[in-house]
Amino acid sequence: MPRDTNTNKVGSNVTLINVMRLPGLNTLGISLARIDYAPLGENPPHAHPRATEILTVLEGTLYAGFVTSNPDNKFLSKVLNKGDVFVFPEGLIHFQFNPNPYKPAVAIAALSSQNPGAITIANAVFGSKPAISDDVLAKAFQVEKNTVDWLQAQFWADNHN
Amino acid sequence: MPRDTNTNKVGSNVTLINVMRLPGLNTLGISLARIDYAPLGENPPHAHPRATEILTVLEGTLYAGFVTSNPDNKFLSKVLNKGDVFVFPEGLIHFQFNPNPYKPAVAIAALSSQNPGAITIANAVFGSKPAISDDVLAKAFQVEKNTVDWLQAQFWADNHN
Amino acid sequence: MPRDTNTNKVGSNVTLINVMRLPGLNTLGISLARIDYAPLGENPPHAHPRATEILTVLEGTLYAGFVTSNPDNKFLSKVLNKGDVFVFPEGLIHFQFNPNPYKPAVAIAALSSQNPGAITIANAVFGSKPAISDDVLAKAFQVEKNTVDWLQAQFWADNHN
Amino acid sequence: MPRDTNTNKVGSNVTLINVMRLPGLNTLGISLARIDYAPLGENPPHAHPRATEILTVLEGTLYAGFVTSNPDNKFLSKVLNKGDVFVFPEGLIHFQFNPNPYKPAVAIAALSSQNPGAITIANAVFGSKPAISDDVLAKAFQVEKNTVDWLQAQFWADNHN
Amino acid sequence: MPRDTNTNKVGSNVTLINVMRLPGLNTLGISLARIDYAPLGENPPHAHPRATEILTVLEGTLYAGFVTSNPDNKFLSKVLNKGDVFVFPEGLIHFQFNPNPYKPAVAIAALSSQNPGAITIANAVFGSKPAISDDVLAKAFQVEKNTVDWLQAQFWADNHN
Amino acid sequence: MPRDTNTNKVGSNVTLINVMRLPGLNTLGISLARIDYAPLGENPPHAHPRATEILTVLEGTLYAGFVTSNPDNKFLSKVLNKGDVFVFPEGLIHFQFNPNPYKPAVAIAALSSQNPGAITIANAVFGSKPAISDDVLAKAFQVEKNTVDWLQAQFWADNHN
Repeated sequence: MPRDTNTNKVGSNVTLINVMRLPGLNTLGISLARIDYAPLGENPPHAHPRATEILTVLEGTLYAGFVTSNPDNKFLSKVLNKGDVFVFPEGLIHFQFNPNPYKPAVAIAALSSQNPGAITIANAVFGSKPAISDDVLAKAFQVEKNTVDWLQAQFWADNHN
Repeated sequence: MPRDTNTNKVGSNVTLINVMRLPGLNTLGISLARIDYAPLGENPPHAHPRATEILTVLEGTLYAGFVTSNPDNKFLSKVLNKGDVFVFPEGLIHFQFNPNPYKPAVAIAALSSQNPGAITIANAVFGSKPAISDDVLAKAFQVEKNTVDWLQAQFWADNHN
Repeated sequence: MPRDTNTNKVGSNVTLINVMRLPGLNTLGISLARIDYAPLGENPPHAHPRATEILTVLEGTLYAGFVTSNPDNKFLSKVLNKGDVFVFPEGLIHFQFNPNPYKPAVAIAALSSQNPGAITIANAVFGSKPAISDDVLAKAFQVEKNTVDWLQAQFWADNHN
Repeated sequence: MPRDTNTNKVGSNVTLINVMRLPGLNTLGISLARIDYAPLGENPPHAHPRATEILTVLEGTLYAGFVTSNPDNKFLSKVLNKGDVFVFPEGLIHFQFNPNPYKPAVAIAALSSQNPGAITIANAVFGSKPAISDDVLAKAFQVEKNTVDWLQAQFWADNHN
Repeated sequence: MPRDTNTNKVGSNVTLINVMRLPGLNTLGISLARIDYAPLGENPPHAHPRATEILTVLEGTLYAGFVTSNPDNKFLSKVLNKGDVFVFPEGLIHFQFNPNPYKPAVAIAALSSQNPGAITIANAVFGSKPAISDDVLAKAFQVEKNTVDWLQAQFWADNHN
Repeated sequence: MPRDTNTNKVGSNVTLINVMRLPGLNTLGISLARIDYAPLGENPPHAHPRATEILTVLEGTLYAGFVTSNPDNKFLSKVLNKGDVFVFPEGLIHFQFNPNPYKPAVAIAALSSQNPGAITIANAVFGSKPAISDDVLAKAFQVEKNTVDWLQAQFWADNHN
């Protein structure tokens, strides 16, 4: 049964899967999630500090990619159809995007840790509480301070909806 | 002896330290770096996918901070003086900034892995090769596509100096 | 595209998945397989000595189960449909069976090791090379020695097709 | 002092060893057992999902062996006398058998985990609670369903003594 | 602010550092200490059973060294000045000595475990409670038993100050 | 067959055990040794930086002990007879001594690492190459420098036999 993908601006919905109750499940070192994507919906750039992720597409089409570390910053991406599998290495920034303007998509993500963590880049950088000094961010992103302030205002609002 | 901090736009210089040659050093699971900061220089927001970092300030003053994972995105920061120590947990986004407009600063970073990796956020997101689709980034950062294009042009140039 | 499930007596076919080539893929500590099941086909009781397995059903229906260790030997099982996920803990004996007499089934297995190993119980116990002494097996399974000899003859033949 | 080896049908008795009480013993990651074998007694085929085992013979003679994983299913075995040591790799099916019809045997097993687990193959496959479907087992062992039913009845009775 | 280095006979003072309070700090797997050395003070030969140590000199000069394992027993040492870093591999015997008769020294030690443990060799061998038999120590150090007794008396007194 | 225990001054002989050749033995993470003790022979105080040790006595009697870390330096010891087992925790200083003046003893040591390392305390401290400065050792052991020099001369000679 499809999940609601209108609950956030980016058009995706991540829900933890309740697998069969096992004695000792909490020692197996994995976690599982179902991701629903609206048409043109996106699971925006993020990273899992403590897990590699294996994504299996159940329905629809996804454009998925990740960026390698310094100094290469190489971007690797692929269009995935039903039954395709893709791997996002531990700690790297990655995303999925549903390029179809009419149909939703569904995928299963398996993560190699019970407690993988997740850092959504835009939220961490521009939406942190309290805000990071705009001097620091203006220099890092090489933009004007008022651009930083505008982005921070927007993500701050987001996080207080 | 101080290192040159004019080699990049953000005003910092990270150099690996040559510790004494040991039999079996390559099995110890650590790495070390010296970081020099120009006045108002910055080691911009980045993450190490496979290591916790311990920073010890040798000279000057640093403003250091990191952001915790979803859903909190809590920003923790501190002003550090000579002899102060700060810890950046594995995989989290962090930075250091030298707030003094006249004096440089120096720190030693010890990382809990031989191969910690480093992801400079702005470079990975806006400076990857090839570029990430501006549709994907515009939606994630909730900005216009031409803002994304402008940022990509700038970081692309940076990476080709 | 479906794989041939007539190549063995139990009616299943396990094939390794070629995920996108990654720099450093060999350090991610996982492996992936696609399993095709004929109608009434079975992936017979086996164990992975070095991996937990996550199974996602792509097509059809599967009856899956595993047995816990001594002293309980508790059998946990479930009927799985498309999109369902099931976890087999490291080292435990498990199987999947397609109960539908007309339709095939397909699943993706993700294993938490690059080198998970697989021990098919019947083959290891009755089809080893050379054969285990029938004195040892008769006592363990509490059957006559000629029953053991008959089973060994059959699995020996199997392994030499 | 010898332990009673008449308590089960296979003629062996496994008892945990009480080593000297240590501060922090529970963090050392090992366990120890003494195994007594009746004349012609057997520690039947089993596997430890989370430990390699080191066996040292203290008294008598033992015939010990294990089977490697798919696709080889290679059987490696050896006759061991007092003072001999043998290693059973993590997760593989192994056994020990006392071939002497008149004299008992004694061994010490050291396991590389505090919680190694043990799966006695015949008990897990034919004696689980509830029983595995005989359709599944008949196909896996390539025997008639009534042979499976007979084996299940026998091990069920065993487990309810 | 310098710590008191007159509290023990060897002229050094090890104090744990209170780093900034972090959510989850207790999972980072490190510990930190500040070491103050009196003029000619010493952190005497010791070993950490569960951690590699990274030492950064903040003030003054230190002569540091460690000895490799059997059969080489190779001694590696170096004179360190402010800003120098040295690594002591896990479990090896090491020490630091301040060779300056007039000035104190200060260093920061980072250890790759939350619970590194520390074994001061002279205290463990000659000052244990109860004492190790002097037969055992006389043979090991190839000295007379009364030399052992004299050393034990001295370290016993030390440990009861 | 007993090993020669006259080859060193302390009256013991440690030999690695050749266990059955296994495919993949080098991945099991253990090592094994047989130790022969002359009457009154001793395996002198030493530590394994990367392994816990399990000792099983095969013949004779042994007095075995180890010392816990700072600040307790607690000495735990026991007299062991044939069939007794004792555990030495990773990294701690331990020894075995054969208290019988007429009979030899034999034990099997299993170590929880392929590469456990061994540091014989007296050899590392007084017999290193080159020698540790006698200033450092005199202060640490609170003896005169000429006592240190005498010990170093003796162990230096030992290591060059």
